[in-house]
Amino acid sequence: MIKIAVDTLGGDNGSAPVVEGILNFLKDHPDVSITAVGKKEELSKLEGKCEIVDAPDIVPMEAGPLEVMRMKNSSMFKTVSLAKEGKVDAIVSSGSTGGFLSSSTLLLKTIPGVNRAAFIAPFPTKIKGHYVVILDIGASNENSPEELKQFALMGALYSKHILGVEEPKVYLLSNGTEPGKGSPVGKQAYKLLADNPLFKGNIEARNALNGEADVIVTDGFTGNVFLKSSEGMAKMMAGFIKNAFKKNLWTMLGYLHVRKGIKEMTETMDYKSTGGAMLLGVNGVVVKVHGNADAYSMYCAINVAKKLVASDLRNKIKEGI
Amino acid sequence: MIKIAVDTLGGDNGSAPVVEGILNFLKDHPDVSITAVGKKEELSKLEGKCEIVDAPDIVPMEAGPLEVMRMKNSSMFKTVSLAKEGKVDAIVSSGSTGGFLSSSTLLLKTIPGVNRAAFIAPFPTKIKGHYVVILDIGASNENSPEELKQFALMGALYSKHILGVEEPKVYLLSNGTEPGKGSPVGKQAYKLLADNPLFKGNIEARNALNGEADVIVTDGFTGNVFLKSSEGMAKMMAGFIKNAFKKNLWTMLGYLHVRKGIKEMTETMDYKSTGGAMLLGVNGVVVKVHGNADAYSMYCAINVAKKLVASDLRNKIKEGI
Repeated sequence: MIKIAVDTLGGDNGSAPVVEGILNFLKDHPDVSITAVGKKEELSKLEGKCEIVDAPDIVPMEAGPLEVMRMKNSSMFKTVSLAKEGKVDAIVSSGSTGGFLSSSTLLLKTIPGVNRAAFIAPFPTKIKGHYVVILDIGASNENSPEELKQFALMGALYSKHILGVEEPKVYLLSNGTEPGKGSPVGKQAYKLLADNPLFKGNIEARNALNGEADVIVTDGFTGNVFLKSSEGMAKMMAGFIKNAFKKNLWTMLGYLHVRKGIKEMTETMDYKSTGGAMLLGVNGVVVKVHGNADAYSMYCAINVAKKLVASDLRNKIKEGI
Repeated sequence: MIKIAVDTLGGDNGSAPVVEGILNFLKDHPDVSITAVGKKEELSKLEGKCEIVDAPDIVPMEAGPLEVMRMKNSSMFKTVSLAKEGKVDAIVSSGSTGGFLSSSTLLLKTIPGVNRAAFIAPFPTKIKGHYVVILDIGASNENSPEELKQFALMGALYSKHILGVEEPKVYLLSNGTEPGKGSPVGKQAYKLLADNPLFKGNIEARNALNGEADVIVTDGFTGNVFLKSSEGMAKMMAGFIKNAFKKNLWTMLGYLHVRKGIKEMTETMDYKSTGGAMLLGVNGVVVKVHGNADAYSMYCAINVAKKLVASDLRNKIKEGI
């Protein structure tokens, strides 16, 4: 039986959507056992359905790397500790990204041979149903060429075993497509990757989401800028669209005609349904959900955690490195 | 009288839109003298209205840094040479970005004290009519902390003298807002900038276009990723919107109601009307227009070149450094 611990605190919307997500998940997946970690009095709906660990303290969103380690009674610290003690196979949280990533890295340690863990997320692309995984999107501030080479391997294993892409096409994020392009670290990583049959060369940020790549490798700083600039532009465009429809009664009527299309677009762009982002390369399955996760996002994230455990990706990475 | 040389070849649409842009510009600006550089036979409409320099060779879009220097009969090489020889005050091209930036840097050299030239562009923001200038968006592959400090100075001078912002707010592009965040180079640049009263700290990519910043400083590799990921996401969203309207007759009718709003959005996002990007820090005024520039874009770009010469930004940078 797969065991998953879920941090029910620290998200923007409190424990209610997390509890609902867990209940819905358990209904569909009787083969999974869940441990809910958080304020006991908020978890009464879960009694008898899953294990409950009382941990009343909330790690603040802006928590620094070491803050979680000091907050022994926080839901996040206790969640990560359950994984460290081997009591669960996977952990899920919608709390502070920095806090969750750093405490997971410190407590679970990286897989032997892996220099650095990578934060990885599947991004929707122009092609419906096709996702590209990009890593590292922010676990590190800088990375060595050797680390980028390892990211390529981990990303390809994720694409293959979780997304079912038989021969994932792996690219390096660069400022041009020619082999000579890239940051100093990127150029060296290019040479290290040249022998990898899955490696297809450089890709520019403007083509990252057009569907040609299955895996895109980058250092954590650049990946974070990519993630956040895409997010910022998507939000800005969505705001413009809203305004376009708000002008008058006629434009509001116009909205009635296209709202289904707009909804489809929003769903394609919805990072919630992708089940969050994962920390790859540590001794454990670590899934981070968006801070404003709703019950559906939590459901998807727990499901990704389950898939990651079932696929035994951790051991595949260990063997691959 | 301000003298501007315009490269009429190398853009995606040939010389026709460039010629039209020049004609329109001259109608409105009798105080500017233009030298059109390109295939003489394609420039007959300009005869008697501006100087013409015959240069029939076209630098290909994917030209490497040294290719232009070898193409002595190319319109681009001759355009840059006119600036080097002091025959014109400014140059404008819609040809190969790499070719134009590298030949301009090689021939014009950087202003004494400036370590590296920076490619800078004004980006539209959520606030109508407000632009944020971001540099470097791709002149370099890497930059030192000292270079980022100089970019802050050049960007602030551009914001003040060209966009009319009295006290521009300057930020560093980072992966978090706290002072300790950033790439290794960014963190050092933060310290060098701490004394600058215009410097307001770090900004995340997701907030770059929300209107709070007037100037955003970054190394050329990261800036290029920012530029291209924003561009890619904007295109993808625009494609989704189009599809939403194409579904059936009703949604097409819906489009009639909102097309004005959509057009306004597209115009806000239109980099064409901002007059292209500039290479700052060289001994000359260098304006690069989008490869698919139309007559209006060319007009705007020549106008920016005129403003840059009139503001004497080059000497203000020299004094500031």
